[in-house]
Amino acid sequence: MSVDKLPKPTRIALIGSGTIGLSFAALHLTQSTDVEVTIYDTRPDLKEYIEQMLPGYLTTLSPTHTLSSLLQSNRLAISPSLPTAVSTADIIQEQGPESPTFKQSLWPQVETHCPPHALFWSSTSGIPASTQSIHMHDKSRLMVVHPYNPPHIMPLLELVPSPDTPDELVQRTLAYWKSLRRAPVLLKKETTGFVANRLAYALLREAVHLVQEGVVGVEELDAIVENSMGPRWTVAGPFKSYHMGGGQRGLRAFFEKIGGTVQDCWKDQGEVNVGEGWEERVFGETEEAYGPAAGLSVRERDERTKAVLEARGEGIVPRKTE
Amino acid sequence: MSVDKLPKPTRIALIGSGTIGLSFAALHLTQSTDVEVTIYDTRPDLKEYIEQMLPGYLTTLSPTHTLSSLLQSNRLAISPSLPTAVSTADIIQEQGPESPTFKQSLWPQVETHCPPHALFWSSTSGIPASTQSIHMHDKSRLMVVHPYNPPHIMPLLELVPSPDTPDELVQRTLAYWKSLRRAPVLLKKETTGFVANRLAYALLREAVHLVQEGVVGVEELDAIVENSMGPRWTVAGPFKSYHMGGGQRGLRAFFEKIGGTVQDCWKDQGEVNVGEGWEERVFGETEEAYGPAAGLSVRERDERTKAVLEARGEGIVPRKTE
Repeated sequence: MSVDKLPKPTRIALIGSGTIGLSFAALHLTQSTDVEVTIYDTRPDLKEYIEQMLPGYLTTLSPTHTLSSLLQSNRLAISPSLPTAVSTADIIQEQGPESPTFKQSLWPQVETHCPPHALFWSSTSGIPASTQSIHMHDKSRLMVVHPYNPPHIMPLLELVPSPDTPDELVQRTLAYWKSLRRAPVLLKKETTGFVANRLAYALLREAVHLVQEGVVGVEELDAIVENSMGPRWTVAGPFKSYHMGGGQRGLRAFFEKIGGTVQDCWKDQGEVNVGEGWEERVFGETEEAYGPAAGLSVRERDERTKAVLEARGEGIVPRKTE
Repeated sequence: MSVDKLPKPTRIALIGSGTIGLSFAALHLTQSTDVEVTIYDTRPDLKEYIEQMLPGYLTTLSPTHTLSSLLQSNRLAISPSLPTAVSTADIIQEQGPESPTFKQSLWPQVETHCPPHALFWSSTSGIPASTQSIHMHDKSRLMVVHPYNPPHIMPLLELVPSPDTPDELVQRTLAYWKSLRRAPVLLKKETTGFVANRLAYALLREAVHLVQEGVVGVEELDAIVENSMGPRWTVAGPFKSYHMGGGQRGLRAFFEKIGGTVQDCWKDQGEVNVGEGWEERVFGETEEAYGPAAGLSVRERDERTKAVLEARGEGIVPRKTE
């Protein structure tokens, strides 16, 4: 099946009806008119539970998509049977328990009952496709599609193929998410925690260190991030930001100017050091991706940042509790 | 002088007219009607340069503040003489060269010519007040007020007192920036790189590591941050976010559940390890700052995040170059 021939309608079977499953259900159903969703779970009150919980996700995205209209038009089905749920699916998307054993035993069952062309996506935040697929007949069908929670709000999807995944499957997966106007990003290889969480945890580690050392309080640290990197990185990621912050010569000039300070801040962390040969690769890739720094508009960055700051409002204030 | 008696008008002398100086000038002049600014620099074309450059900063913030109206009403002055520029100043804000020698020789000159009540602020990104002040008569007057560039757009100001800085000076500085509706954040002690850049560099270090290892490309890594942590941290900083992501028991439950994965991601970085005793301090401070996780509205977080994502638009596209 070629990339431009995603079946219409695309039938998606969701395995697992927790917050991620419901969030994905709402996203699929509201962002495309050509998607049908079946939700499978083993909980005995599945229908009542979905009737209670799913409308909250739907209304966040669309005032016109009601649970009853989706059920009546057969765009949404609820199934307590795995074989039934996957029997006509084009895509099977799993967000079950984060256990290798669970996932390793799930996929061969899915494989037995689903159509031969179906794609398998796992929402796991940490178990690579190559670990999940060990008991599968055809290991090439499975890849990780890791959301940043909750996926009906956050645009990112990290696509992590296993070494067995063919490019055609990757391209079909990218095409699907682009058609929903999300931000699918392809990783080149499997790594512990994938990329988004690794980056976030690296900052969290330094945050813990600075609180522990008595440099800054928890609330103050959060305020710092909310009023600096948060809005900046919403508009331009770290490499692009420092490329724009380095003047005419971009990232290269940024490191020439403040590489010493960066190194001083890194010095207790080991492993990556300025001057160990990564610079040419990172500078080169940045220049290839964005061209010369002078071609990126600082005025546009600032106007977008202003708009972001105005849109976020005052921040989340704790509710008074009795 | 007490906190509620910031002089009206407040007279600010800016030392240094680079991009940070001009950005601060525009901020002071447009965000309060009670501020007068004098810009001092040694460049021979100072007046022509400011006439050419400052209007771009002013129009970003306010259509009604023109250079000529500010000059005519004496709210803005330009001075090539340091003694004249600081002679009636309530606040002297420095953004000169990032050199300890320059700053150490500057402050005693300022001290000689300015009023006795004047506050001294340094915009340095790395030279602590206690290093800058060594030749001063009264070391207690100086503190770091470190912007996140450019300060007319980014709300954050890191306030870093030296061990000599009295609380009254800190409170007057906080009061000034709050009156301009900015986000001043007080650090508890001086540290290399202060907090914002240390956090950003910690993430940058992991970003370089992941590109170097061939896990992800530069452009893909930026797209990941722009579509996940960027918007999330614009709305709620890392501790608040993970507190909200941990369910009813907040940050504590977050670490119980995924502390193992966090540790696996941290394991090549040393120094901070889960289980080394920092947890109670960080969990306790988080609960004290925000109360129980159940008191923070996930729906509000999601609605603010949606608004932020809609406001940022499509992202900065490189201009075509010939």
